[in-house]
Amino acid sequence: MQNQKLFNVAVVGATGAVGEQIIKLLEERNFPVNRLKLLASSKSAGLKLKFKGQDIIVEEATPESFKDVDIALFSAGGAISKELVPHAVRSGAVCIDNTNAFRMDPETPLIVPEVNMDKINEHKGIIANPNCSTIQMVAALKPLYDRYGIDRIIVSTYQAVSGAGSKAIAETMRQSKEILEGNDPEPQILPVGSLPVKHQIAFNAIPQIDKFEDNGFTLEEMKMIRETQKIMGDDSLKVTATCVRIPVVYGHSESVYVELKNDFEIEDVRSLLSDAPGVVVVDDPANQRYPLATDAAGKLDVFVGRIRKDLYNNRALNMWIVSDNLLKGAAWNAVQIAEYIAIQQ
Amino acid sequence: MQNQKLFNVAVVGATGAVGEQIIKLLEERNFPVNRLKLLASSKSAGLKLKFKGQDIIVEEATPESFKDVDIALFSAGGAISKELVPHAVRSGAVCIDNTNAFRMDPETPLIVPEVNMDKINEHKGIIANPNCSTIQMVAALKPLYDRYGIDRIIVSTYQAVSGAGSKAIAETMRQSKEILEGNDPEPQILPVGSLPVKHQIAFNAIPQIDKFEDNGFTLEEMKMIRETQKIMGDDSLKVTATCVRIPVVYGHSESVYVELKNDFEIEDVRSLLSDAPGVVVVDDPANQRYPLATDAAGKLDVFVGRIRKDLYNNRALNMWIVSDNLLKGAAWNAVQIAEYIAIQQ
Repeated sequence: MQNQKLFNVAVVGATGAVGEQIIKLLEERNFPVNRLKLLASSKSAGLKLKFKGQDIIVEEATPESFKDVDIALFSAGGAISKELVPHAVRSGAVCIDNTNAFRMDPETPLIVPEVNMDKINEHKGIIANPNCSTIQMVAALKPLYDRYGIDRIIVSTYQAVSGAGSKAIAETMRQSKEILEGNDPEPQILPVGSLPVKHQIAFNAIPQIDKFEDNGFTLEEMKMIRETQKIMGDDSLKVTATCVRIPVVYGHSESVYVELKNDFEIEDVRSLLSDAPGVVVVDDPANQRYPLATDAAGKLDVFVGRIRKDLYNNRALNMWIVSDNLLKGAAWNAVQIAEYIAIQQ
Repeated sequence: MQNQKLFNVAVVGATGAVGEQIIKLLEERNFPVNRLKLLASSKSAGLKLKFKGQDIIVEEATPESFKDVDIALFSAGGAISKELVPHAVRSGAVCIDNTNAFRMDPETPLIVPEVNMDKINEHKGIIANPNCSTIQMVAALKPLYDRYGIDRIIVSTYQAVSGAGSKAIAETMRQSKEILEGNDPEPQILPVGSLPVKHQIAFNAIPQIDKFEDNGFTLEEMKMIRETQKIMGDDSLKVTATCVRIPVVYGHSESVYVELKNDFEIEDVRSLLSDAPGVVVVDDPANQRYPLATDAAGKLDVFVGRIRKDLYNNRALNMWIVSDNLLKGAAWNAVQIAEYIAIQQ
């Protein structure tokens, strides 16, 4: 980055799965950090984390933590964001919030840089980072939306356990090991840590991510519906989602059916996506090449393949969209937003 | 069964994942067997398998194997069926073929007993058992088709590795173990044994089952499309499928979006499905109850849940359909057909 100004940056939820990736990206991208403040719950306070070769002691996140902080990245859950983001804003920090707390707040822009960076300056101290499963889908669909218009999206997800945090990763590994040893694993975390019923995730597929709403959809599914409409700036966009957790560690996959508003040639779609920022087309059936979670893990891009015209609707197509849910789906999207803010100042 | 007549039954592919289940079901269901002939490739000939406490020696399947056989159940792959089924038919056996060899043959009925048993007597010696992913879907959709009509189906599958045979199960377990031990697994079987490129299945999702056709769909996806039309007896039915292999051992799950031809109440759909033969509704979001592959494994039924009205199309709904792919998806459907034949004679 060309920017000379240095920023005091706070990472809230520094010891979590996403926080860890944010710290790594700030270092790798050589983000113009003056001072990095690592915040977490009292349980994690006192831990030491590395940043550019230096130890930084994790501090407890409190309302007073944000003095002199210029940019605060929140990934410690919705309750923490609801409590602490307003304090951070009052202290003068620009908050990039990776939780569900402010995403649908009309005053808060919900940003995927490749899609609607033009809305970022409408912020009043808070910029919301969308849900992981939404980000990768809208990044891949935006070029189609602009060129052809989109009438309807029907998506089924294959979501990685890391989206539910480090404990869900550990649980998946523990359960897998127990099953391989011939034992019965006792589920403790998934599908939703705060709900009473737990299901086995190892060698299974759980059609529940987050709590159920009264309409029979889960909150995760409603996030994909509402957030897609907000990010695209189009409340008339019809979205249906089924969100499913599968035993993958990193990388969400999505089977997406899209009805466009205009006729298209499938080759034009493929070249449109190949030219799209942040999108990589991996689509060579003859050589069995398509996006895979294991290939996307650790990468910043959104990978798209299995692009094919629907057989019964001339204006519809199917695609397979994969991205690292902790990176483009969370940490990288947040750091992209932070980089934009840094460049502007 | 009330039938007094006993039948000479042959199981071709007796040592495979499906063959094993067929033998188990013939025993459990007390099928009226006079003599059970277990056939397989020359590699497996000489092995002993148990049936009702007796050892039966596996014989090599040859064109001469079917003398005096009344009912032959084939699950040894399409090439074997293409070669041997005609011999078995000439010997006078009724063949129930679990491969893709004759499914789309206009002379061969493609039967799911709960859906189109009325077509079974049209057979000329061969009755085809549909593909696993098709069977469970049409069993759940038939009551809706009859009551409301179906215009369009959009399905994404979460398919178990046992659908690719015993070697794929072993590979999934081996890869999982290697990854848990920190090693890099070398894929050898999946996605398609006969194709050159292999992908890791452990902790991954592979959007390829069977070979690709020129239209960008896989053969597995085209099976779901064509077989559904044939079984429903409706070529105008619009079906779109994305078939994905995930690291589950037993039980295919399916995320299904259905557009009906008429208005409906979601409670009527739920009670219609509750009354449907072979279908069990597991749909209680408040108590986090929905079908799971691990619960369906070993059971004969098709389980349906996550039944909810689409938010943007009054005539559409979503559901989650799960069944044991080796049982209702293969062995049980075949044995159901065999039972019907036995009763008729």
